[in-house]
Amino acid sequence: MNSYNDRKSQIEAQAIRLGKTVYNDSKAVKNPTPRLELQKESSKLATLEDAIRKSGLSDGMTISFHHHFRGGDKVVNMVVDKLAEMGFKNLHLAASSLSDVHAPLIEHIRNGVITKISTSGLRGELAKEISHGLMDEPVIFRSHGGRGSAIANGDLHIDVAFLGAPSSDPLGNATGYSRSENAKSICGSLGYALPDARYADKVVIITDDLVPYPNTPNSISERDVDFVVEAESVGDSSKISSGAIRDTKNPRDILLARQAAKVIENSGYFKPGFSIQTGSGGASLAAVKYLRDSMVKNNIVADFALGGITAHMVKLHEEGLIKRLIDVQSFDKVAAESLRRNPMHKEVSANEYASADEPGSAVHYLDIVILSALETDVNFNVNVLVGSDGIIRGAIGGHPDTAADSALSIIVCPLLRGRIPCVVDEVTTLITPGSSVDVIVTEYGIAVNPRRPEIKERLEAAGLNIVDITWLRDKARSIIGEASALPFGNKTVGVVMNRDGSVLDVIKNIES
Amino acid sequence: MNSYNDRKSQIEAQAIRLGKTVYNDSKAVKNPTPRLELQKESSKLATLEDAIRKSGLSDGMTISFHHHFRGGDKVVNMVVDKLAEMGFKNLHLAASSLSDVHAPLIEHIRNGVITKISTSGLRGELAKEISHGLMDEPVIFRSHGGRGSAIANGDLHIDVAFLGAPSSDPLGNATGYSRSENAKSICGSLGYALPDARYADKVVIITDDLVPYPNTPNSISERDVDFVVEAESVGDSSKISSGAIRDTKNPRDILLARQAAKVIENSGYFKPGFSIQTGSGGASLAAVKYLRDSMVKNNIVADFALGGITAHMVKLHEEGLIKRLIDVQSFDKVAAESLRRNPMHKEVSANEYASADEPGSAVHYLDIVILSALETDVNFNVNVLVGSDGIIRGAIGGHPDTAADSALSIIVCPLLRGRIPCVVDEVTTLITPGSSVDVIVTEYGIAVNPRRPEIKERLEAAGLNIVDITWLRDKARSIIGEASALPFGNKTVGVVMNRDGSVLDVIKNIES
Repeated sequence: MNSYNDRKSQIEAQAIRLGKTVYNDSKAVKNPTPRLELQKESSKLATLEDAIRKSGLSDGMTISFHHHFRGGDKVVNMVVDKLAEMGFKNLHLAASSLSDVHAPLIEHIRNGVITKISTSGLRGELAKEISHGLMDEPVIFRSHGGRGSAIANGDLHIDVAFLGAPSSDPLGNATGYSRSENAKSICGSLGYALPDARYADKVVIITDDLVPYPNTPNSISERDVDFVVEAESVGDSSKISSGAIRDTKNPRDILLARQAAKVIENSGYFKPGFSIQTGSGGASLAAVKYLRDSMVKNNIVADFALGGITAHMVKLHEEGLIKRLIDVQSFDKVAAESLRRNPMHKEVSANEYASADEPGSAVHYLDIVILSALETDVNFNVNVLVGSDGIIRGAIGGHPDTAADSALSIIVCPLLRGRIPCVVDEVTTLITPGSSVDVIVTEYGIAVNPRRPEIKERLEAAGLNIVDITWLRDKARSIIGEASALPFGNKTVGVVMNRDGSVLDVIKNIES
Repeated sequence: MNSYNDRKSQIEAQAIRLGKTVYNDSKAVKNPTPRLELQKESSKLATLEDAIRKSGLSDGMTISFHHHFRGGDKVVNMVVDKLAEMGFKNLHLAASSLSDVHAPLIEHIRNGVITKISTSGLRGELAKEISHGLMDEPVIFRSHGGRGSAIANGDLHIDVAFLGAPSSDPLGNATGYSRSENAKSICGSLGYALPDARYADKVVIITDDLVPYPNTPNSISERDVDFVVEAESVGDSSKISSGAIRDTKNPRDILLARQAAKVIENSGYFKPGFSIQTGSGGASLAAVKYLRDSMVKNNIVADFALGGITAHMVKLHEEGLIKRLIDVQSFDKVAAESLRRNPMHKEVSANEYASADEPGSAVHYLDIVILSALETDVNFNVNVLVGSDGIIRGAIGGHPDTAADSALSIIVCPLLRGRIPCVVDEVTTLITPGSSVDVIVTEYGIAVNPRRPEIKERLEAAGLNIVDITWLRDKARSIIGEASALPFGNKTVGVVMNRDGSVLDVIKNIES
């Protein structure tokens, strides 16, 4: 016989063998509601307060944020205000970066709501207060690649991620832009939010444009999302190109950018199929503009541009001079719009961008990176985090990741910023070790790391003004004079992690 | 003082506090090789044999495969032949599905290379042998959504996944198509391979078109890939629309398709913004063709079509009648090409498609699904796996997933296939419980599940020929006569898992 009832004992035997139950049909109920209606009842939709409660967040846990709106971010303050109101204490705030808009955190630190911070950078009042010793526990600074690795390997465990998104459907398919007529904000790539989405225990999407399912193609997938919260605004898109990544009109920056372009053209890496990244900072961003003429003249097309994608990069891509854009962060609105529009403009996660643990991450296949610096030193070390006054005023970003893994790393920085020298005996804080820095371009000359004699030879052959790094230090010193020692105290206010998870440096409190 | 050496003790103290080492610069070495060259030395590139060795595969472990090439797949046989040659034994083969092209597995089962199989379906000689008792351990059958869930929750742990891809770069960014002039194959979506890529301990991409990094936009990410193997061919693309999904010219199928279209039009769910999926089987695939006229006439645009995407669906999408395509499997080459070309044609993983565990998976937001059947019964249960001769000849696919979670599930099947009745007292094997089946369309009439009286009312009001399910059974019986009982033995050759991980049914060996 072969009726279901006859098979019942064998079904039960198999269930026992497999450690499973027998299917119970009495639980089966079909929901007849049309799906355009049903999605409005999504169990993931919640107010911010409800999402926080349901997430299981408790005192001492780690919350995370992305910084794709840069100076225009509204999510960090919105969420931490709410957490304070709800009485949370002793939280670890792990943002991909923080900026001057986050000054309200100072009060939340004073009140014990936030007692630990992990970030790529700090700026403004918050940075100043922390530099002066606001927090008992030092801030942990990581590069973008280092943060991705730390999240993936468990060094940075996130309990609840709060991720702002310019669009999401009620199930959590979210993007850094919106295709609806109600779009309120745009930030482009959500690359720094993707590790949080994948690895955090709970993920809360906060959106200012709730669109019908399916919000595809999507950046964050519904399967990584637990709650979807509607908010009036998640960010001011006019500010995504604020701060470090404004397009430069500074004549010295333009001079530096032109020099950097010449370094690239003569470096041996300027060949069909090359790849390039420009870090934040006016001169490094502008260098691409000057490289463009050479690409056209020499019929050289790049395989890809990586990293913070800019309007310049988009232009070259749309002209056919750069085949693909690999975007972990859209540096301006033009780039953010391009991500929505251009099929070969691809978003990547921080891990796919710059993880040291992943042999396939993009930085490993980057020929040339142009980066900025607050300070460099005679050993080619670079500091992009702490100002010459000892106050934190920057961000590590992808600086050490790209410098280490690219074939050629070029630092562009003015030798003198007013009374501040850019080439010193020793950087105030070590962010990118000199072992990964190849060329330093200043308005007084170009220094090449002795580890790269072949580069020096090529640039000299091209007639560029190659000088010794110590000559640059001496030059600065001869103009400005000897800098006096900074009044650092003995409290450790920051710890700089290397991208491999080791400790690279510490930042002490400044007493002035 | 603030020299690095002065800070050394604090750096060491922080390293100890954080359980980390101090950064060691002596390990830092820059690689000067241009990246177009460097990627050719990718540590992931390997021969199949090397990839297997380095993967750590050992006897008793679980290997996995996808079935996106359907009858044209070349990867399963290639890999298992190699594993046999290398002396592996006692392996668990966990494929998303298997078909008649996999008959060579019979010998590998006889020789003890493969001793356990998990799959969605079996066809051809392999299915016949297994139905007759070839294996000691019963085959585990899961739906596509059920497999995705089982992989995600650990029920199905994959040690090494071998995933065929029509293109990959040396780092493992892979897609189901290629953009290069050397493209040899195309299968479109890799949706059933994505859970394997994400959750398997080791992932081997096997590709017949190795392209330069970055192969973006990509389907599988380098970060989930351990090895990349080049092969002469991974699949015969001309066969992806073979077997169950050939376009029908059968007049009875066309009649059924027209009836199914009428059911949809009058069901109450045919409204602007509706969503639809068609399963494999000529009539269900063809129904969309007949629905098109009504969409145009009534100015109804669908929000999305889901699932196995077909040329019909692509046509409606490109005409603007379906806004988005959500593609877990491309049912023909037209669909596969569309995935490469159409930005709103989106690939999803099996989990995003049909997981019962994820409230955001697409099936939950599906209004209408049209499915086929080998057998249905008076309780609306459906069998799509075991033939009326007791031999396995089908696949569960997404049948129970979509039937359960859609608002309206429609089964189209001829009441009589030669001497074989489609409506019986009790299905030979329970695959989709009657509690999730709403309408059965046959050439003799349309039966509506008593659980859905409102649907019956609407279809009757529209003048469709609504009959009782027992009338259909009696009709078939009156023409064919009483079927004799099948000669099943007492060995369990298959276990059917429900999508929630419970045991739904068993399949016994057939003795004839």
